Amino acid sequence: MQPIDILSLEYKQPGHPIYVGSDILDQLADKLQEHAQPKHIMVVTNNTILNHYGDALDDVLNRLKLAPIIIQEKSGTREENPVVIKGDIIDSEEAKSWKWVSEIIGAMEQYGMDRNSTIIAFGGGVIGDLAGFVAAIYKRGVALVQIPTTLLAQVDSSIGGKVAIDLPIAKNLIGAFYQPQLVYIDTAFLNTLPPEVLTSGIAEIIKCGVIMDADFFAYLEENIGQLRNKNQTILRYVVETACQHKINVVKQDPLEQLGLRKILNYGHTIGHALEAITDFTRFRHGEAVAIGMVVAMQIAMDLGFVEDISCAERQFNLLNQAGLPTKFPNDINVDALIERMRFDKKGAFRFILPSKIGAIKYDHAENGKVIYDHKVSIEQIQRAIEKVNRITNYELRIKKYS
Amino acid sequence: MQPIDILSLEYKQPGHPIYVGSDILDQLADKLQEHAQPKHIMVVTNNTILNHYGDALDDVLNRLKLAPIIIQEKSGTREENPVVIKGDIIDSEEAKSWKWVSEIIGAMEQYGMDRNSTIIAFGGGVIGDLAGFVAAIYKRGVALVQIPTTLLAQVDSSIGGKVAIDLPIAKNLIGAFYQPQLVYIDTAFLNTLPPEVLTSGIAEIIKCGVIMDADFFAYLEENIGQLRNKNQTILRYVVETACQHKINVVKQDPLEQLGLRKILNYGHTIGHALEAITDFTRFRHGEAVAIGMVVAMQIAMDLGFVEDISCAERQFNLLNQAGLPTKFPNDINVDALIERMRFDKKGAFRFILPSKIGAIKYDHAENGKVIYDHKVSIEQIQRAIEKVNRITNYELRIKKYS
Repeated sequence: MQPIDILSLEYKQPGHPIYVGSDILDQLADKLQEHAQPKHIMVVTNNTILNHYGDALDDVLNRLKLAPIIIQEKSGTREENPVVIKGDIIDSEEAKSWKWVSEIIGAMEQYGMDRNSTIIAFGGGVIGDLAGFVAAIYKRGVALVQIPTTLLAQVDSSIGGKVAIDLPIAKNLIGAFYQPQLVYIDTAFLNTLPPEVLTSGIAEIIKCGVIMDADFFAYLEENIGQLRNKNQTILRYVVETACQHKINVVKQDPLEQLGLRKILNYGHTIGHALEAITDFTRFRHGEAVAIGMVVAMQIAMDLGFVEDISCAERQFNLLNQAGLPTKFPNDINVDALIERMRFDKKGAFRFILPSKIGAIKYDHAENGKVIYDHKVSIEQIQRAIEKVNRITNYELRIKKYS
Repeated sequence: MQPIDILSLEYKQPGHPIYVGSDILDQLADKLQEHAQPKHIMVVTNNTILNHYGDALDDVLNRLKLAPIIIQEKSGTREENPVVIKGDIIDSEEAKSWKWVSEIIGAMEQYGMDRNSTIIAFGGGVIGDLAGFVAAIYKRGVALVQIPTTLLAQVDSSIGGKVAIDLPIAKNLIGAFYQPQLVYIDTAFLNTLPPEVLTSGIAEIIKCGVIMDADFFAYLEENIGQLRNKNQTILRYVVETACQHKINVVKQDPLEQLGLRKILNYGHTIGHALEAITDFTRFRHGEAVAIGMVVAMQIAMDLGFVEDISCAERQFNLLNQAGLPTKFPNDINVDALIERMRFDKKGAFRFILPSKIGAIKYDHAENGKVIYDHKVSIEQIQRAIEKVNRITNYELRIKKYS
């Protein structure tokens, strides 16, 4: 056997800050200067956002003495700006396409944007995913700044570096784990958010409480009304707490290799399938996840992981109070849903399941590795869905079955 | 001014080993098992390599009890294997295309390859770039194993994580810094390399000596004949030394942000432009870089950075002895070359320049930052090219001008 020498290459991934505040857009220029030192800036956004915050954005960019290239929707109203692409970036999944990636990249090349350029993703999750993926691959990566404007993006998609686009054959098929230089979260953006979009984001916040933090869950129960009313003090606390939980998980399993990061998928096994069989048009992400959480909780109860029925009841009630759905509409085809899950999961049905409010059930494998997800049979899923669809409220159910 | 809270996200980038040996393919299965734990393997390679090493590769994969999906050239000879794509992956720049990326990704999706899959880039730099980029973006990144088979790939492109493809508007326009799980360098592969391909790789090795290691340069002067004759002991020492130098640079500036990593571009400012104006067909990469090194050395002498003319002479002689070109062919249009450099560099001509054999010239900026490259005027470039084209050997020149 021939001898082999081993050299080794190892280096540090630099960290980045996540700023959280309310009404802090006026301080953005300083933070950009501090963390990204942009020579060129490309802002990827849409018209809804520009209508609300275009002037404030101009102030920021003027203070940086930079002429931005702004990519926005068709029929833009900011004709005075150097708009290079007028396409159809909208907050729908279609924008996450190779067509848009190559159009943005073409514009960047045309404007001589080099590796010292910065891309600002100014919008919801779709814009964060699209602009983030461009930043990840343009000239092997340029600086990325995430300025999430929806609740879902603020507490979830802007943190952790997941960026992706869809190919015709599958969603999120290509992407990267690409960390931004900074994330800038201004909860004042949520003031202009339509109520149903806010509600969708609340689902991920409730999820965070169920899987990781019983006190936070209790706080949400206490303050759900004020949260829906966009009380800025409550919003700031809720967003920052949810962000910190996400950060803690991502830190430990940044590339989703250990499995820990999978716990964030609570409610998503069913949720994704439900979105998919309704062509991603009927349910908002958080709505589908809410129904998925109710089903997952029911499975956890059926398997004996959750012993106290009040856990299910509290989750059910809080989702309801948040304005989120907790059962499937009558016309949803359960067989198609399960077929879709089989496709998504390549055959094996694995669920993140809680053990109580604030904790998930996990096992240790023989090699000591922690297993966070659990194999569930088709029959168990079907049974849980049937039960969930019969529930009007948990009090009733306790009466009936006990 | 509203208060801002700062959260922070930071994590370690795991390191990876670079194995170097001669005739060590039989030990690959163990190393794959140790570092990549592959569930599925996709090998991206070409027929030339499979003709030489197909059986050895089969042994490796059989020992892993894995059925590989092999993507190879048209008119493949390994019909018995599960070949899913028969296209035209060849070691030419055309293979680095979005078309090939999406074909490989389509095959991976079709075969149900999930995030626990491993891509093996088994070939030269083009295959490493293409397969590496697929690994970087497929499902946000899967394990990558680089098995470089050319000298250039072994000492340069397989180390440091640079992967990229071309878009019609520019070369290497999209890509990533994506580190493999392991790099497996077997210098026995070089035995089947055509002499001119070996020679092209020697240019990068000589470059390494000029910019970083005078002793290594002297070793090359001593052993250039044996190196060209593929003496395995010499090859192993040379490859391992060059790898270690590249690792040292990449470690300190992994994402090419500090500028240090730019020193590896010595000879490349001219070299890239020369390749480009001849449509990447007339010169091998190392040949173009060799001419670029001679010009850069001349500029360094003209600017007084290099005081001892023997430095230029030694570089000139070693390149010649390696079989590399040291001047431009008569028909090269210098104006077109400079125009192309202006395009590549967006207007500013900046060169990595030596101060002697084994060291580059660098400056400190006012803020203390180290500046590794130097602004050079068009006139200085033109003058250096003229001089270089007059040189037959440096002895003559010393006589004439002194």
